[in-house]
Amino acid sequence: MQRYFISDEDWTEREVLLKDNNAHHITRVMRMAVGEEIICNHPEGKAAICKISQMTNEIVHATIKTWLDTDAELPIQVTIAQGIPKGNKLELIIQKGTELGANGFYLFQADRSIAKWNEKNAEKRINRYEKIMKEASEQCHRNIVPSIEGAFTIEQLLDKKQAFDSVMFAYEEEAKTNNYSSLSSALKKVNKNDKILLFIGPEGGFSDREVQLLKTNDCTPVRLGKRILRTETASLYALASISYHFEELGCENE
Amino acid sequence: MQRYFISDEDWTEREVLLKDNNAHHITRVMRMAVGEEIICNHPEGKAAICKISQMTNEIVHATIKTWLDTDAELPIQVTIAQGIPKGNKLELIIQKGTELGANGFYLFQADRSIAKWNEKNAEKRINRYEKIMKEASEQCHRNIVPSIEGAFTIEQLLDKKQAFDSVMFAYEEEAKTNNYSSLSSALKKVNKNDKILLFIGPEGGFSDREVQLLKTNDCTPVRLGKRILRTETASLYALASISYHFEELGCENE
Repeated sequence: MQRYFISDEDWTEREVLLKDNNAHHITRVMRMAVGEEIICNHPEGKAAICKISQMTNEIVHATIKTWLDTDAELPIQVTIAQGIPKGNKLELIIQKGTELGANGFYLFQADRSIAKWNEKNAEKRINRYEKIMKEASEQCHRNIVPSIEGAFTIEQLLDKKQAFDSVMFAYEEEAKTNNYSSLSSALKKVNKNDKILLFIGPEGGFSDREVQLLKTNDCTPVRLGKRILRTETASLYALASISYHFEELGCENE
Repeated sequence: MQRYFISDEDWTEREVLLKDNNAHHITRVMRMAVGEEIICNHPEGKAAICKISQMTNEIVHATIKTWLDTDAELPIQVTIAQGIPKGNKLELIIQKGTELGANGFYLFQADRSIAKWNEKNAEKRINRYEKIMKEASEQCHRNIVPSIEGAFTIEQLLDKKQAFDSVMFAYEEEAKTNNYSSLSSALKKVNKNDKILLFIGPEGGFSDREVQLLKTNDCTPVRLGKRILRTETASLYALASISYHFEELGCENE
């Protein structure tokens, strides 16, 4: 069943209103008719099966039929702090990260980031990423759409660390040593419902200055397997491993 | 240090010859000089630090200095049997799968594959994927370049199953149920050095016929987390989880 994310103000007790892109998708792309059913997601994470009761090209009314108790969210809230990479790699990181359950993304201008963001292009880019996240959330049946903010400096993000239970950074030098910190030893200290912040460097990795800054701020360096991953692959590895650890292995630390 | 994969016939006891694309890369792209060092990988997986002793634009001679004992290979040999997807998704699957440690890829024409391969376009495509895998292996310091073959029918691939210790398929219906087979219960039955074959459907997943065929051939359906993944994300999730399970958690079943 097709899934739509609807802002809070478009919900009443008995009905949901679908406008703009959602209405366009229902009437023009899916060519649905009155009486057909869709799933509507509320920003708080709840979802309901709704039946289309009335429609024009601009607005679709749907009656709430059954609230669902499905939960497709990771049991850990993972925020990816991604050093801005080149080209359109962020689109891949954000689309795949949404599919793999990321709770949100912070973007930061790393010492080795080649692309430079300014206020003018940032807003346009963020809007584009929000659209990608909404589509990916609908496709993979997430209960929420992840958040995205940036671009920050690494110092600004380290100022936010109190909001997280655990802060880690993917450090490729760890992959080359025998005496490495494994991601699993870091995850074994994480409890259900914890918030994790994971820093990932851009192409070329973190600068020495950034590594020092992360270490003096008590961030844990983690190795993501034995191979050196490209920047756009690191968050996917980490999110898949976190899903595997908490959803598939059932290692639910208390 | 830059890494190159060299065919067996270009190794002598004391020296390696680098030709064609490798010679071009050393002389024109990297603009290296005599005396500089590179890492050369032998097809069997061994690697050595070599010093450039002599060069023209067509051929580079390098003297073997030290054999390395690094091993960046997964302790499990994973072959991905990928249902042919649309567009250029195979490039992503193959590049990222190489980074994440896949041992090889089989491509198959699934019931729901939209792109149709024929002998003419298959050879050209396979050549292109081999180039992508070689570059990705060099970049992420693999000891080998994965193999790739196709396109097969699913029946042809099932005929090869005796060569594997364990055959699984990613079954998205499993993600929707509470009574699912987890990837971890399948991996707990896998031993170090085992060979796994993992089937992944194209967009739209496996047909009912294919699911029946896989089940009657004793292939294990596995869930890859709670969210529905796109076809190009499924192999990345599985490879990352296998790396996490065997390299990071240290769950080395004997």
